[in-house]
Amino acid sequence: MASPMLEFNEKEYLAVCGSSKFAKEMVSVGPFSSYQHAIDAARDIWFNKVDVNGWLEAFAAHPQIGNRSASHNNSTSAQWSKGEQSTALATATDATLEELYEWNARYMQKFGFVFLICASGRSSSEILAELKRRYVNRPIVEFENAAKEQMKITELRFQKLLDSKSAPDSSTELQQ
Amino acid sequence: MASPMLEFNEKEYLAVCGSSKFAKEMVSVGPFSSYQHAIDAARDIWFNKVDVNGWLEAFAAHPQIGNRSASHNNSTSAQWSKGEQSTALATATDATLEELYEWNARYMQKFGFVFLICASGRSSSEILAELKRRYVNRPIVEFENAAKEQMKITELRFQKLLDSKSAPDSSTELQQ
Repeated sequence: MASPMLEFNEKEYLAVCGSSKFAKEMVSVGPFSSYQHAIDAARDIWFNKVDVNGWLEAFAAHPQIGNRSASHNNSTSAQWSKGEQSTALATATDATLEELYEWNARYMQKFGFVFLICASGRSSSEILAELKRRYVNRPIVEFENAAKEQMKITELRFQKLLDSKSAPDSSTELQQ
Repeated sequence: MASPMLEFNEKEYLAVCGSSKFAKEMVSVGPFSSYQHAIDAARDIWFNKVDVNGWLEAFAAHPQIGNRSASHNNSTSAQWSKGEQSTALATATDATLEELYEWNARYMQKFGFVFLICASGRSSSEILAELKRRYVNRPIVEFENAAKEQMKITELRFQKLLDSKSAPDSSTELQQ
């Protein structure tokens, strides 16, 4: 029997990574025979096909780490961000959140895009230390760091997308 | 006697490099004691302070290589571009110009910004070969290549700015 094929629409790919070029290219090269096949395609598209404007577009789809007001947004992407930051928010004191907020603003001021980190399972103090460490980088170095973090987030979100598709109430076509 | 000080206004710096952050920072760290002093400051600002949006802003201020219609623009920057491309235009056949035009469009389509090269003294066929060689690069690699070419253009234009200031009819303060 052939492997079940993985196929998503543009809107679903956009929730995984907010570059419209990324979403369009994923639709055009899919469907995929496995999670790994989809991830390999996503890596190739993200690093080799999406241009720097597309990277900025994807970065702009993320809320600031620790920004509680962003959780009012009900899109899939916003809900996933909330989940990804749940460890950070659970471990944060008001003082840490305040400092995170300040450093995020400084980061945005220097680099022109939001501080991006694959936050899953990381405490707020770990994130803050990483933000301060990366803040001294040259803009082009940090631009590429952010793109690598985006790819990690993309991989985690693909897994979530897959899990949601293979839940008992969804199409059998996608069940593993 | 103290060295003559080099000081330019924001508009002059913008003609040298079309990033508004670059121009503002140069005004704030100037005046400069020598050409080398100004270039050192320009390098630091361009590579360490101007963010990726500022790089894109500066790239967008350049006409496409070989685009004759751009020469109708009378700004200082446009006139300098015309001079920088004079060897290329003088050596170009219609067929080379046509091919250059096509490859520029492909480059813009892939990378989202104009193909940037320090064209001074280069023939159109050299430029075309370089465009084709660079076209296969990853977007982030080409983004940094373009920034390095911009810096070479900036250095040449600074020299022109200096020459124009030290011409016999200008202020004695700037004469070398």
